[in-house]
Amino acid sequence: METDRDFIQSIERGFAVLMAFDAERANPTLAELASATGLSRPAVRRILLTLQRLGYVRGDGPRWTLTPRVLSIGQHYSASHGMIETAQPRLLSLAEETGESASLAALDGSEVVYVARVPVRRIMSINVSIGTRVPAHATSMGRVLLAWAPTALVDEVVAAGLPRFTARTITDEGDFRKALRTVQDQGWSLVAEELEEGLLSVSAPVRDASGSVVAALASSTSSGRSDVGKLRQEIAPLVVRTAARISADLGHRAVPGTGREGFF
Amino acid sequence: METDRDFIQSIERGFAVLMAFDAERANPTLAELASATGLSRPAVRRILLTLQRLGYVRGDGPRWTLTPRVLSIGQHYSASHGMIETAQPRLLSLAEETGESASLAALDGSEVVYVARVPVRRIMSINVSIGTRVPAHATSMGRVLLAWAPTALVDEVVAAGLPRFTARTITDEGDFRKALRTVQDQGWSLVAEELEEGLLSVSAPVRDASGSVVAALASSTSSGRSDVGKLRQEIAPLVVRTAARISADLGHRAVPGTGREGFF
Repeated sequence: METDRDFIQSIERGFAVLMAFDAERANPTLAELASATGLSRPAVRRILLTLQRLGYVRGDGPRWTLTPRVLSIGQHYSASHGMIETAQPRLLSLAEETGESASLAALDGSEVVYVARVPVRRIMSINVSIGTRVPAHATSMGRVLLAWAPTALVDEVVAAGLPRFTARTITDEGDFRKALRTVQDQGWSLVAEELEEGLLSVSAPVRDASGSVVAALASSTSSGRSDVGKLRQEIAPLVVRTAARISADLGHRAVPGTGREGFF
Repeated sequence: METDRDFIQSIERGFAVLMAFDAERANPTLAELASATGLSRPAVRRILLTLQRLGYVRGDGPRWTLTPRVLSIGQHYSASHGMIETAQPRLLSLAEETGESASLAALDGSEVVYVARVPVRRIMSINVSIGTRVPAHATSMGRVLLAWAPTALVDEVVAAGLPRFTARTITDEGDFRKALRTVQDQGWSLVAEELEEGLLSVSAPVRDASGSVVAALASSTSSGRSDVGKLRQEIAPLVVRTAARISADLGHRAVPGTGREGFF
């Protein structure tokens, strides 16, 4: 059983300092990090010296910066999830077939995290890279992941509210649950301009050997280059087929008559 | 001044447990993690419970797994290094112009770390993703980064030995230092099959506003698809020009007559 005695506060604080480096605080001073984390300056100083000795940060005069070694941590996620290596050539094929960016994402709480990506062109104003997090409810990847997630998680997402990002974002609980049922029925999701104006994407579920949905595969484009009709007729079948191939690579066997991935 | 008092051992241990998850230990048990890290089982247990509360690992019966949240840590590196966002559209253009994978890498000690990448096809037997580390001495990216690195670092790399990976790997110190001088003189590096049979790449330096070399831009291909002659004549100029554009985006002004990037 977990008790408070088992929680190691210095580990929490170490991560808090590491995560305080971002676009707005790329080269912070000790004082800026103390203010961002709410920790005392002596505490932040000891943490920085520890992280420096471990090679994750570097001090340059009064300013600190993250080193590329922090990327190794994420690399361990990729290396330990064979799915990502398995999916990489399939993502490349999908990007080549469609001429559009292909992405693989997993659910982390109520957010979607990009775990692999083959960019083709810049279509979003946000910089999408591996590790980027986007809200699940307003993206095709999130809809796919939520469509097959435990009910409790969907209830949690709904209870937290469905924030509006554009005029098209589904924010009504009933409409949202209906959208998830549509995704379950058709076996894929199309979301147009609900997260950002001009951003369109189609996603399909990737299943592991046990049949669990472990990731969503997406093809993304912009309204200037494509439209909902083309996505539905041309892109969705490619995404569904590629997701089924990744699933098969992972040992999933589509059961005829029940798996909608089977009809391609 | 840093003293041993300033080193927080639980932070080191937290990272040691996190980094013990890899391709060989994707879903380790507590006992396996204890054995991999050399820590006691009670210590590993407390660390796992802490990391679980922070959302970085998940326990599933007796086995543990990394969550996609660990990717956020690397994402903070990318977000705090504007260079990566700046370089992304240039990497895409280079990949489109050459039809080959384009990568950006930085130096971490004697190793090269991929910090951004646009894959086009799978050319290496190792799975190259962001955060992947390769030895500097046997790659074109590493040669570029070492060519403009402090002498002490080059001495360190040489002193550590120049491991052989293929029949073509430069392992002689004199030859290696001469290769670095060639890179400095011509302003780019071509390395053919020194890390892996069939792997060819060309790299050029990316400089920041101060003129420091902060990254290497590379285009990679395989011997079945290209050759040294084509890389030298067609690809190297594109890589040098793209690296110069990224440098200009970062505020670097090539000085006529001194900057070899200037003649394209």
